[in-house]
Amino acid sequence: MSNNQIDLLIKNATIVTMNPALEIHQPGALAIKGDTITAVGPEKELSPLESTAREILDAQGGAVLPGLINTHTHAAMTLFRGLADDLPLKTWLEEIIFPAESRFVNPDSVYWGSLLACAEMILSGTTTFADGYFCMDGSVKAMDESGMRGVLGQGVVDFPAPGIPDPTANISEALRFVEKWGGFSSRIEPGIFCHSPYTCSPDTIRTVKEICRGEQVLFFIHAAETLEEVSLIKSRYGKTPIRHLDNLRILDPQTVIAHAIYVDSEEIELLAQTRTAVAHCPESNMKLASGIAPVVEMLNKGVLVGLGTDGCASNNDLDLLKEMDTAAKLGKVRYLDPTVMDARTVLRMATIEGARVLGLEKEIGSIEIGKKADIIFLDLNRPHLIPCYDPFSLMVYSAQGSDVHSVMIEGRMVMENRKILTFDIDEVMDQVIRISRGIISGE
Amino acid sequence: MSNNQIDLLIKNATIVTMNPALEIHQPGALAIKGDTITAVGPEKELSPLESTAREILDAQGGAVLPGLINTHTHAAMTLFRGLADDLPLKTWLEEIIFPAESRFVNPDSVYWGSLLACAEMILSGTTTFADGYFCMDGSVKAMDESGMRGVLGQGVVDFPAPGIPDPTANISEALRFVEKWGGFSSRIEPGIFCHSPYTCSPDTIRTVKEICRGEQVLFFIHAAETLEEVSLIKSRYGKTPIRHLDNLRILDPQTVIAHAIYVDSEEIELLAQTRTAVAHCPESNMKLASGIAPVVEMLNKGVLVGLGTDGCASNNDLDLLKEMDTAAKLGKVRYLDPTVMDARTVLRMATIEGARVLGLEKEIGSIEIGKKADIIFLDLNRPHLIPCYDPFSLMVYSAQGSDVHSVMIEGRMVMENRKILTFDIDEVMDQVIRISRGIISGE
Repeated sequence: MSNNQIDLLIKNATIVTMNPALEIHQPGALAIKGDTITAVGPEKELSPLESTAREILDAQGGAVLPGLINTHTHAAMTLFRGLADDLPLKTWLEEIIFPAESRFVNPDSVYWGSLLACAEMILSGTTTFADGYFCMDGSVKAMDESGMRGVLGQGVVDFPAPGIPDPTANISEALRFVEKWGGFSSRIEPGIFCHSPYTCSPDTIRTVKEICRGEQVLFFIHAAETLEEVSLIKSRYGKTPIRHLDNLRILDPQTVIAHAIYVDSEEIELLAQTRTAVAHCPESNMKLASGIAPVVEMLNKGVLVGLGTDGCASNNDLDLLKEMDTAAKLGKVRYLDPTVMDARTVLRMATIEGARVLGLEKEIGSIEIGKKADIIFLDLNRPHLIPCYDPFSLMVYSAQGSDVHSVMIEGRMVMENRKILTFDIDEVMDQVIRISRGIISGE
Repeated sequence: MSNNQIDLLIKNATIVTMNPALEIHQPGALAIKGDTITAVGPEKELSPLESTAREILDAQGGAVLPGLINTHTHAAMTLFRGLADDLPLKTWLEEIIFPAESRFVNPDSVYWGSLLACAEMILSGTTTFADGYFCMDGSVKAMDESGMRGVLGQGVVDFPAPGIPDPTANISEALRFVEKWGGFSSRIEPGIFCHSPYTCSPDTIRTVKEICRGEQVLFFIHAAETLEEVSLIKSRYGKTPIRHLDNLRILDPQTVIAHAIYVDSEEIELLAQTRTAVAHCPESNMKLASGIAPVVEMLNKGVLVGLGTDGCASNNDLDLLKEMDTAAKLGKVRYLDPTVMDARTVLRMATIEGARVLGLEKEIGSIEIGKKADIIFLDLNRPHLIPCYDPFSLMVYSAQGSDVHSVMIEGRMVMENRKILTFDIDEVMDQVIRISRGIISGE
């Protein structure tokens, strides 16, 4: 009898399961025991569980979805949100962002900046993210305290970086990071973020990938993001970025390529065959004027594509509901075809496909029995969400981050009625404002 | 002494004036007497007014901006939000939208649908909008009750339309509408929305424009929106849509062209010379896969361009803060240049340039002495709005509709702390849900 007891029964919900059949239960119910989903279905079918539930939560007709998954960001870059917009890419990166990073990025600022990012993501329905930056011990601490889930990649570049003044120590620092945090938490996995083929030598890239294989962690890299990069890599190595990475034997299911804008059909085949994952970041690609990724060709050829917001210096927010809307619309206008990047496809990218990108599809990405209880609750009783003809359309084209009222990760409520429960958001905002004053004054 | 008395002094605000110098007062203050702004400037300069103010409002460091201006929408189409997404344009329009409109659009549904749109717009910081639809008496009633400002265009097409079963009565109905509502309210101006060059004959277009000239009201038309339209108009009249309209002598400062995607450089010159206004609707253009308007060329050549959300069947929201973000990003990626469509330019499009598009620049569009007190208040103390290095960037790239906490139109608070004061939003939502049930059941 005690085995049948459940901790929480959520009822009277519009459950968008994102299971393979894309079932919606309306009214639906959902049972949770500990950190795990133990039942999901039409409310009627689950009503016998009411007597065994410790707690019953009436979702009042609201939407319940799997937590959204951000497959590419640089969380601590909230520190630089809006610092340098509307500038040429080279000026932005070399004159503003790199110098600011070298002076102001340290374990303390990464911790506070990442915690601010966690707040923003939780408040807009993201429960899992893949991060790549420097001084990543601070990011681990932030993710752990926030209750969020994710993969955190310590950054590697071949020049001095925050926390790694000696570039010859870049790889050993990444190895230290992975060894330190492996097994630390059921929610947190370390990885390595090899910045790009233009900031990392072939030797660096190969060595880092070997470490990742040995440690069984994910390898992240920016690639094929800009035309400048393509011509630089071609001139250096006689190959386009994706072919260059293929030549270095980097492409495999444990590699995540951010952007992948400049990929021809042969390279798309290569990504599909090697089951290399792509993090599509449409808003960053638009704002930095990088280009528009051929997402529809990638999907048609079977490439695994998730969604990412990229960092706040190039977006400037971490709102995946907004990113879904943009991803759908940008795809349609790129192909002059309103039927592509439909709402179901895009919502899959932000949930179950994102989970697959991060190798977490057995744990998260859909509301199914046996998966972790990472779920978000949206209030549908809002002017901009009425009427509701199709919950998928409503989520992708009309819902906003602020419609998410509660967030559960691994069975634990981290936000309830817009109040973050896991940390003091006011303190985080104060600390980031303190850091930003230093950045403004240059001190 | 009584002449110097003011009704309201707003202090401790970050005032983004959108005046010609784009001044920001931080901390700033703003004085209002009746419906009019009587003083604005740094808080210190206005502090002597504190003793004469009936009421003092502490904005607590929040942002105060001119109300946003939506230069193109079909407000009542909230009724069809999400009814038919991800479909080919022809199927969407001819198989779903037109039949639904012919059955379910009437003065009652237009009233409720428009009032829902007003709620959504107020909640996201829009104070003025240009509407074009049918049964527009219902839209006038909704705008009047909501306290919003705008120009409402009665629709004209050459086939049976909602409220006009006999298409030969389309123009007389529009004339009746304009005559009925001219002078009705200081906030509401009637106009005529001649649907498009492909649904209106040259005679219809010419006659409607003559009526608009006689009545001194705005003439709205969709034009150069899709490649299909361009080839249809070329095959019918031997000219591209803009040249066709020029040939009909439609182009002048009292004409607003929605979309203007397919315009060559000669046509852009023509729009600039005739001072014809353009309503740029990037999200609709993306979602319907129409194309990307050459906004930067238009701006460079001096064409007056405002922003529009278009209707909820093709966006699917009415949030101008989101539309600004998309407009900036889409422009950058179209030209592969991150410096174009900068935050200041885009915020101007959504405020003072929008006012110019609607011929209302003497009344609204900026926070300046003598203008109407149409202003919005945003809470900046939010995780996604921290830090603030540049208020323009923050508004365009990071702010969300839900950051708007209060809205004043013509000196009257229509929303305070997210609560709409002018009408019962719960009743409106109930009524739209009732109408949507009929649409779903087809009854």
